[in-house]
Amino acid sequence: MKYEIRFLPSETITNAPEGTTIFNAANWMGLAIDSTCGGRGTCGKCKVRVVHGSAPIREADRKFLSDAELNDGWRLSCRAVLHSDCMVDVPRLMGNPKAALLGYGHHVILNPNVAKIFLQLAEPNLEDQVSDLTRVHAALEKEGYDVHSSLALWRTLPKLLRASDFQVTAVVVGAELIALEPGDTRDKNYGLAVDIGTTTVVAAIVNLNTGAVEAVKSELNRQAAFGADVISRVSHTMMEKNGLAELQTRILETLDDLLDQLTTQSDNARENIYESVIVGNATMLHLLMGIDPEPISVAPFIPAITQAVTFRAVDLTPQPPLLQGEGESNPLPPRPRGEGESNPLPPRPRGEGESNPLPPRPRGEGPGVRLHPEARISTLPHLGAYVGADIVAGILATDLTRNKDGRLRLLIDVGTNGEIVLGSVNGTLATAAPAGPAFEGAQIKHGMRASDGAIEGIQITPTGDIHLQIIGGNQLKPLGIAGSGLVDAVAEMYRAGLVDASGRLLRPEDARGRIADALVERLATIDGVRAFRLSDGESNIVLTQQDIRALQFAKGSIAAGVAVLMQQMGVTANDLHEVLLAGSFGSYINPASARTIGLVPWVPVERIIAVGNSAGEGAKIALLSFREREAANRIPEFIEYVELSGRAEFNEIFTNALAFPELKDDSAKDADSRSWTMLVNELDSLTHGGGV
Amino acid sequence: MKYEIRFLPSETITNAPEGTTIFNAANWMGLAIDSTCGGRGTCGKCKVRVVHGSAPIREADRKFLSDAELNDGWRLSCRAVLHSDCMVDVPRLMGNPKAALLGYGHHVILNPNVAKIFLQLAEPNLEDQVSDLTRVHAALEKEGYDVHSSLALWRTLPKLLRASDFQVTAVVVGAELIALEPGDTRDKNYGLAVDIGTTTVVAAIVNLNTGAVEAVKSELNRQAAFGADVISRVSHTMMEKNGLAELQTRILETLDDLLDQLTTQSDNARENIYESVIVGNATMLHLLMGIDPEPISVAPFIPAITQAVTFRAVDLTPQPPLLQGEGESNPLPPRPRGEGESNPLPPRPRGEGESNPLPPRPRGEGPGVRLHPEARISTLPHLGAYVGADIVAGILATDLTRNKDGRLRLLIDVGTNGEIVLGSVNGTLATAAPAGPAFEGAQIKHGMRASDGAIEGIQITPTGDIHLQIIGGNQLKPLGIAGSGLVDAVAEMYRAGLVDASGRLLRPEDARGRIADALVERLATIDGVRAFRLSDGESNIVLTQQDIRALQFAKGSIAAGVAVLMQQMGVTANDLHEVLLAGSFGSYINPASARTIGLVPWVPVERIIAVGNSAGEGAKIALLSFREREAANRIPEFIEYVELSGRAEFNEIFTNALAFPELKDDSAKDADSRSWTMLVNELDSLTHGGGV
Repeated sequence: MKYEIRFLPSETITNAPEGTTIFNAANWMGLAIDSTCGGRGTCGKCKVRVVHGSAPIREADRKFLSDAELNDGWRLSCRAVLHSDCMVDVPRLMGNPKAALLGYGHHVILNPNVAKIFLQLAEPNLEDQVSDLTRVHAALEKEGYDVHSSLALWRTLPKLLRASDFQVTAVVVGAELIALEPGDTRDKNYGLAVDIGTTTVVAAIVNLNTGAVEAVKSELNRQAAFGADVISRVSHTMMEKNGLAELQTRILETLDDLLDQLTTQSDNARENIYESVIVGNATMLHLLMGIDPEPISVAPFIPAITQAVTFRAVDLTPQPPLLQGEGESNPLPPRPRGEGESNPLPPRPRGEGESNPLPPRPRGEGPGVRLHPEARISTLPHLGAYVGADIVAGILATDLTRNKDGRLRLLIDVGTNGEIVLGSVNGTLATAAPAGPAFEGAQIKHGMRASDGAIEGIQITPTGDIHLQIIGGNQLKPLGIAGSGLVDAVAEMYRAGLVDASGRLLRPEDARGRIADALVERLATIDGVRAFRLSDGESNIVLTQQDIRALQFAKGSIAAGVAVLMQQMGVTANDLHEVLLAGSFGSYINPASARTIGLVPWVPVERIIAVGNSAGEGAKIALLSFREREAANRIPEFIEYVELSGRAEFNEIFTNALAFPELKDDSAKDADSRSWTMLVNELDSLTHGGGV
Repeated sequence: MKYEIRFLPSETITNAPEGTTIFNAANWMGLAIDSTCGGRGTCGKCKVRVVHGSAPIREADRKFLSDAELNDGWRLSCRAVLHSDCMVDVPRLMGNPKAALLGYGHHVILNPNVAKIFLQLAEPNLEDQVSDLTRVHAALEKEGYDVHSSLALWRTLPKLLRASDFQVTAVVVGAELIALEPGDTRDKNYGLAVDIGTTTVVAAIVNLNTGAVEAVKSELNRQAAFGADVISRVSHTMMEKNGLAELQTRILETLDDLLDQLTTQSDNARENIYESVIVGNATMLHLLMGIDPEPISVAPFIPAITQAVTFRAVDLTPQPPLLQGEGESNPLPPRPRGEGESNPLPPRPRGEGESNPLPPRPRGEGPGVRLHPEARISTLPHLGAYVGADIVAGILATDLTRNKDGRLRLLIDVGTNGEIVLGSVNGTLATAAPAGPAFEGAQIKHGMRASDGAIEGIQITPTGDIHLQIIGGNQLKPLGIAGSGLVDAVAEMYRAGLVDASGRLLRPEDARGRIADALVERLATIDGVRAFRLSDGESNIVLTQQDIRALQFAKGSIAAGVAVLMQQMGVTANDLHEVLLAGSFGSYINPASARTIGLVPWVPVERIIAVGNSAGEGAKIALLSFREREAANRIPEFIEYVELSGRAEFNEIFTNALAFPELKDDSAKDADSRSWTMLVNELDSLTHGGGV
């Protein structure tokens, strides 16, 4: 049940579900309402006047508003809950709120969950015998913070207050007073945004006072030594008695190493990082928390946790194996996606070109993620076992479910798993397709992560010249191919006729005469496998037939997922306003190439937008704005999760999606590309024609 | 601001302050309203009909009540807050609530903060992919429990649910889901009530399902090796770098040993104890929590914490010394009660008769108090630095501030510190007087704790016979004198003329002829000190002149405190309805003797009531009823704390209170005993006559 809410004087109108607060509804419309407590009903600053409609008087209202104000319709907007249509007058803000531009043109009003408040407390005397704790809490309450505190903080109180002449800075995370620091330390206030990809982990230190990103680093997930995809990781926890603790240790090591680099680069202390927002898929976050991920990997695919959770960073200490459940003493062989379903991605040995994961190193002193000792970690919610918090973060960063234009957008996160979201403010579907690690450069002969020396873009000229775009500068010797380079290479080779629509790499004898000689010269057979030389001389980077097949597997899986969602929603490519391509691998896919290989439906190329690491952007947004985080936490309510493994037709449509779509001019505006129409038609016949 | 609330059909009327919920007001009047969530607005069972007066509709109301019901005045009583006089119809309970009789005739409706709920969860499938955590929380919400949970619990979820076929028992403490246990374990549900006295620690295991006390034990506080009173304990933390951790370790050892005895006696497992309510004075609770107590001991006497707090039992692990504050590197000499004040209790060497504290032993495995690993400990609030949670518990157990009769009561907790509370539902004062450990048998030549062999009562017949009452049976050989025996002995010796009003023990030559020969024979000089033999033969228990002086110090201090409160309230002994004598030393003072030596004002002897360990009773009540605990947490709001050390007249009135009051017939009803009138008159002249 939704109600209309009209904001004055801006005349902004929105429809919000029953139970939404006026404060949140305004925030989601981009209207800033004053507040220091972030909507907890404790600061009294967010008052608005309800001109029409009902808003019962609440406890908090009576605390902050006079009888005259209450009679006049004034209410705290964070306590006023919608039960009817209403019209609300919002006072103008006295100053402009601080804001930062993040995500896909997302204007974020700074309102972090961490607040530092400088307290100049009165010293106690015989006429004022209030206890230390009450003194601190009362001062915070006066500033609008109604907080809890813990034994660890209480232990510091007597010495700290007296050593600092009762001048301290309170560090509040959410509703928790996590620390008191001597003197005024408000200028040191940082957060950590992390996107844990199956292959790559990206972390950024964000200045919570200014919204500035102080440093950002990415690193291979050290769990990669135990397998390239989530299924192999889960298998490891099932096969090895200590596997879960081992994997948890690896990701903690990765984060620890990233923190070393980040703090060195930005000259910030770990102790001034009070909160971290960490996103990732369900398996990654379960492994981070040391929670058995096994039920995620076998039907019916149940995570222990899908909701957003918060815990102390130090509590992530890896622990001895859990109490043996019955399933553990006799471990079941890992099954990728439920019974009765053939595995679309047979396990393959690690490609040679994959950069070698660093050897495990002994854990540093101190447990968990070593930030401020009482720092909190928050996650975002998962939509399902295979559409995780990283996608929710991406939806937040791209405004997909909230964009006021009401238009249909397709968001594809191209990673080891391909997550797909299709929708608008009017309704959204999401699913996951197992793409494998090809897009991240893994299991590709000369594949590598997007770092210095990686080929990230390729152009083949009509005359047969090859231009390579290399990360770190084209003067660098190419060391391998990044995911975006792989997509470009295959697309360009398909356009040049070196690869046919079925993905077959031409033999030199078949190519000769039809294709520029310079290109035919590059066709070779290496170790009995057909290949194409991308670079010359010393650095001989090749793309093999197997690499092309790996890419076909990956893009076919995603394309099939997209087709399923479009069919379920009853839309065609013509209905798509934008296609957003996200990837946690830190580089940007060429939209034209993505369209050429059929990774995305045929829409005008300017409507295919590479949005980069939208998961990481979403994590930063959630870190900088508690209101945005609350909005993210509600995203699952507005999205229907489509389980592909429950659909027998998926494997068939997947097989058909392996081929490349028919070639046409890049400038063609016609969205009814043959292969995409075919995919959706096939789905229709499979679903409605008794194909199941 | 108070409002009148009239309950139907019982026609009970009470006045409650603005902001009180109808639920709490009813509970404090002894009216039971149905509820499973304990007043948290989540079970929807506590509905009442507001017949007159306003009660705004709240969120929770809409969740549980229909529009018709809302229009008819139905509200959840735990959400309905008083803002006007009102009349409320309370539905009759379907069954009688379980109740237990505790404290001083206190009828406690069982409503513990711990709930065990058996959950028979649906197993997930492809059509029901709800996560483990959401599945558990949703089932609990259906039962009326809206709870949080922690990383430790999340880690157990996948294995536990699947190993137990999704049949589990949830353990909820407050709003925290602390554990899930396989199968139905509802019958094992225990709590631990503890009173940490400076000298004696008393602990009881309570069955939270039935209210039955399964086992109770007391033991010497092992901190006693570091001094008999709180001041010496605090000094130790200031003098020794590791002193705080050492004292914390000692009290944890004491609790651990008591738990060994309790669990053995009652055949209960520590793992089925989910919550503990611990009371004690401010210093004892600070030492338990490992919080520096130094500021409690020096002016202006500021505890770190006075409010009721809750923490995890395992978090009590003793820790290395805190960061050095400036005051610690150069420790100040301990000062008992502020500058400019002579110490009424000069430190004395430990008396020989004091039972030897057990040697320290190595800590057992596992940190903190070893109950269920996620068990919570809650304290009650302190009224001030020297009137602690033990007194708040005593006030709860005796109903002093809530008794509907509105009559004036005086509660004296006779321990190492004498805490004094004077008041009624109309207003209450409290103070603390430093009594020293005499009442607990310490620093008395043949003093001992109230255990087997201790003389707990004494009668001297007119013919000069002495009858001893011995704990464990009069056939036992007397081993020493307990506190109650000491009071009896001195009172009887004063009555017999062996001791004069100034406390002087007569010399045999002065006594002969005036007192029965049998008694004169017992007068002796031991090591140059006058003494009186209480027992004969092999066990030669004596009471020395020094012992009498120690008792005079102790009772004089308390009597002076009582006089200050009575003067401040403007009442005389005639106004006292009852005098309640509490003591954590486990034995009962003889009311007549207490009156004879002037420990309490002269009121008819049947109005002097020994209520035993009221602090321990209060802890049990708070454990068995969350509503009672909430009531206890509000007690400080209704009590004015009187700081004696701020009053220069206290020492003078104390000196005058050292003497015994004039002797009169035990049956005399006249309360205007000369010495008490004198005390209060003196106070008046000191206060108003410029004596300061």
